[in-house]
Amino acid sequence: MATKPNTPKGTRDFGPVEMSRRNYIFDTIREVFALYGYRQIETPAMENLSTLMGKYGEEGDKLLFKILNSGDFMKGIDSGLLEGEPGRLAARLCDRGLRYDLTVPFARYVVQHREELQLPFKRFQIQPVWRADRPQKGRYREFYQCDADVVGSDSLLNEVELLQLIDEVFRRLRIRVAIKLNNRKVLAGIAELIGEPDKLIDITVAIDKIDKIGIEKVEEELAARGLGAEAISALRPMLKIDGTINERLRKLGEMLAGSATGNLGVKELQFVVDSTLALGLDATLDLDVSLARGLNYYTGTIIEVKALDTEMGSITGGGRYDNLTGIFGLPGISGVGISFGADRIYDVLGALDLYPAGLGSCTRVLFANFGAESAAVSARLVKALRAAGVSAEVYPDEVKMKKQIGYANNAAVPFFAMIGEDELAAQKVTVKNMATGEQTQIPFDGIVDFFAK
Amino acid sequence: MATKPNTPKGTRDFGPVEMSRRNYIFDTIREVFALYGYRQIETPAMENLSTLMGKYGEEGDKLLFKILNSGDFMKGIDSGLLEGEPGRLAARLCDRGLRYDLTVPFARYVVQHREELQLPFKRFQIQPVWRADRPQKGRYREFYQCDADVVGSDSLLNEVELLQLIDEVFRRLRIRVAIKLNNRKVLAGIAELIGEPDKLIDITVAIDKIDKIGIEKVEEELAARGLGAEAISALRPMLKIDGTINERLRKLGEMLAGSATGNLGVKELQFVVDSTLALGLDATLDLDVSLARGLNYYTGTIIEVKALDTEMGSITGGGRYDNLTGIFGLPGISGVGISFGADRIYDVLGALDLYPAGLGSCTRVLFANFGAESAAVSARLVKALRAAGVSAEVYPDEVKMKKQIGYANNAAVPFFAMIGEDELAAQKVTVKNMATGEQTQIPFDGIVDFFAK
Repeated sequence: MATKPNTPKGTRDFGPVEMSRRNYIFDTIREVFALYGYRQIETPAMENLSTLMGKYGEEGDKLLFKILNSGDFMKGIDSGLLEGEPGRLAARLCDRGLRYDLTVPFARYVVQHREELQLPFKRFQIQPVWRADRPQKGRYREFYQCDADVVGSDSLLNEVELLQLIDEVFRRLRIRVAIKLNNRKVLAGIAELIGEPDKLIDITVAIDKIDKIGIEKVEEELAARGLGAEAISALRPMLKIDGTINERLRKLGEMLAGSATGNLGVKELQFVVDSTLALGLDATLDLDVSLARGLNYYTGTIIEVKALDTEMGSITGGGRYDNLTGIFGLPGISGVGISFGADRIYDVLGALDLYPAGLGSCTRVLFANFGAESAAVSARLVKALRAAGVSAEVYPDEVKMKKQIGYANNAAVPFFAMIGEDELAAQKVTVKNMATGEQTQIPFDGIVDFFAK
Repeated sequence: MATKPNTPKGTRDFGPVEMSRRNYIFDTIREVFALYGYRQIETPAMENLSTLMGKYGEEGDKLLFKILNSGDFMKGIDSGLLEGEPGRLAARLCDRGLRYDLTVPFARYVVQHREELQLPFKRFQIQPVWRADRPQKGRYREFYQCDADVVGSDSLLNEVELLQLIDEVFRRLRIRVAIKLNNRKVLAGIAELIGEPDKLIDITVAIDKIDKIGIEKVEEELAARGLGAEAISALRPMLKIDGTINERLRKLGEMLAGSATGNLGVKELQFVVDSTLALGLDATLDLDVSLARGLNYYTGTIIEVKALDTEMGSITGGGRYDNLTGIFGLPGISGVGISFGADRIYDVLGALDLYPAGLGSCTRVLFANFGAESAAVSARLVKALRAAGVSAEVYPDEVKMKKQIGYANNAAVPFFAMIGEDELAAQKVTVKNMATGEQTQIPFDGIVDFFAK
């Protein structure tokens, strides 16, 4: 018992101050989700491995946390298995894993409950996910996702609504953001027009890095991935489109005129941009032809949000997928969704000092403990304060005042109330403002008015 | 892909209506916790097995969900292990498990963060726990616990505060409850006085069942556990104490006069009861000498709450433990805590039909979709409504009215708003009250006042 116990690698405890900040973020997102008509669901932490495996690529399968079958997990395991692949043994030992994201469990939910669900279904979900990734700065093995999706509707009004929703969340959090848009069909049109339709994935994987490594390195990578010089030089002007978002859309439309798919992508973007700008938003709206975000997944609009006033990758992302539930045998359900990155938003708010004052404190007034009689009277006043909605406490132990005041300071309690012998006699409370040091005497029967006003 | 995917055995999805009910419970408990000065923490879903093992007894260890080590979990496993006990192989394959309750992770938290923590520390925690129990009606493998504990104070004022807190939560939920009290020291005094101090556990395990099996069966069990006839007949009157809670305490005090420990237990109970009754409470306060609740754990006050108007075991429980963090090498920290059973409270509220009306609905008004122009105008009005805090939506697709109204019904949306050609010309919205069928025409610029009033 000598060594201090610890949280497992890559996981964290959240103390009271961190929790108040995290709740500020989650409550803001939750309120906006509800205001926009999204309805909350929760799914279990564990899913059958058959639900999870093969949905995140080979790399993703390796990052699943698997749960050991209990009881008779030894049954039928022979030593021959040990000489095989680790994966084969794991398959015998484990039937379940921890969820890796909220999207696959949501797809499973829609298929499992399809008889009870009325489409379109607008759901939100705020829950932790687990990935057996190598932990590093800002990357954890347990973290929360905050997802909103609409399934069962292919109307672009859903995209417009999600962009407004993103704008509203960051307006409330006071984070200035740029929302970048793209469309999978635009990427397909580009690949088609430069004569490399089969290299769509190579092209997008490479150009997705343009912000990080610059256009020259991207072109080197394209060459390494087998694109001809002609294709690369045809691609160049498409990546260099500039101007306002409407100018960019016009130029892109001209460049993609020869591709029906590309054209449709531009038209979809134009509708989303026009409708969103007509309604007005605080965020900047950008067109970013290099934006891909897990291309194999999205089939239409692609969305990514970055904070303007601090460096911090993507803090929200999403897009349209045309076949979410197809993996579970229910084809033809289109959806569009977004996911807020709570951990990064947490860091952005900290870096920009945007947390509201007083978040960390919960109790407004702590009553000192001067012994049994004082404590009993204090408990009566505290009961009246709580009934009026004022968070209040009596210090439980009769110890030195210094320790009691230290407790109030530590918990950021703004007022310290004292009922000593003199106060008991006068039926008054001495209330100390912890910030200014100012002391006021309040009659017992005036204490609720003093704090509840 | 033919078989429908499912949640793993013993786990559940929560849809929008269930979530609104669960949130009603969690929000009520969370608000009262905060009002009473408890501060929220969260710990990771997984803990190191060294933190969890040996804390819940042999049976508990078997019920831990263990997580397979990733990557090189095969390293060093030879076939000899397969012939050994399952436990030995599991120990090589797993370093971590899912938390089994919130108490052991909290003890680990206190020890790990003891340098930053100011004692007494009042914390609350609302998170799921996992147990590999055989699933049955009302027993799940994943369920939420809602715990509040004070550590680092042995003052009985903490017990008094927790009883008020319990009373306030159930007052808000409108569930009439009885709070039963006991004290470990009373149980020890009884064992001492009937001449069987070493049989304390046998006695309490047996008498804990008195409500279920009756006193005769309890006495049979006591005999089977080796208690003499004399001890059993000495015990009988102690289990038959009746009268008001103060009468019971007086009689118990007389019976236990010969045991210093028993006497102290009665004195503690008397203080807690007097202080709580002086402050007033809605719940009934009972003394139950047979109440034990995991006796090995509690060292002082023992608390259990039952609903009065429906049959449903214990819906909240708790007590004082004198050595929570001793298991992690930090002795001498006393604590007292309670745990609300959210799943049972959920069932009680359902059985007594106590959920507030309108919980399941989130959107107040759904705007019908009559095509592009109508939808664009509707989106503008919806934006204004949302800015005024009114949850509103535009139906995303231009489909038959019947389907759109069906969606509103399904989501329990109380108002359906229509902007057809006539309304567009007149700059008015036709608003239908879904409950009464009544229709009203509202000018576009009056829509916010209509709903935000």
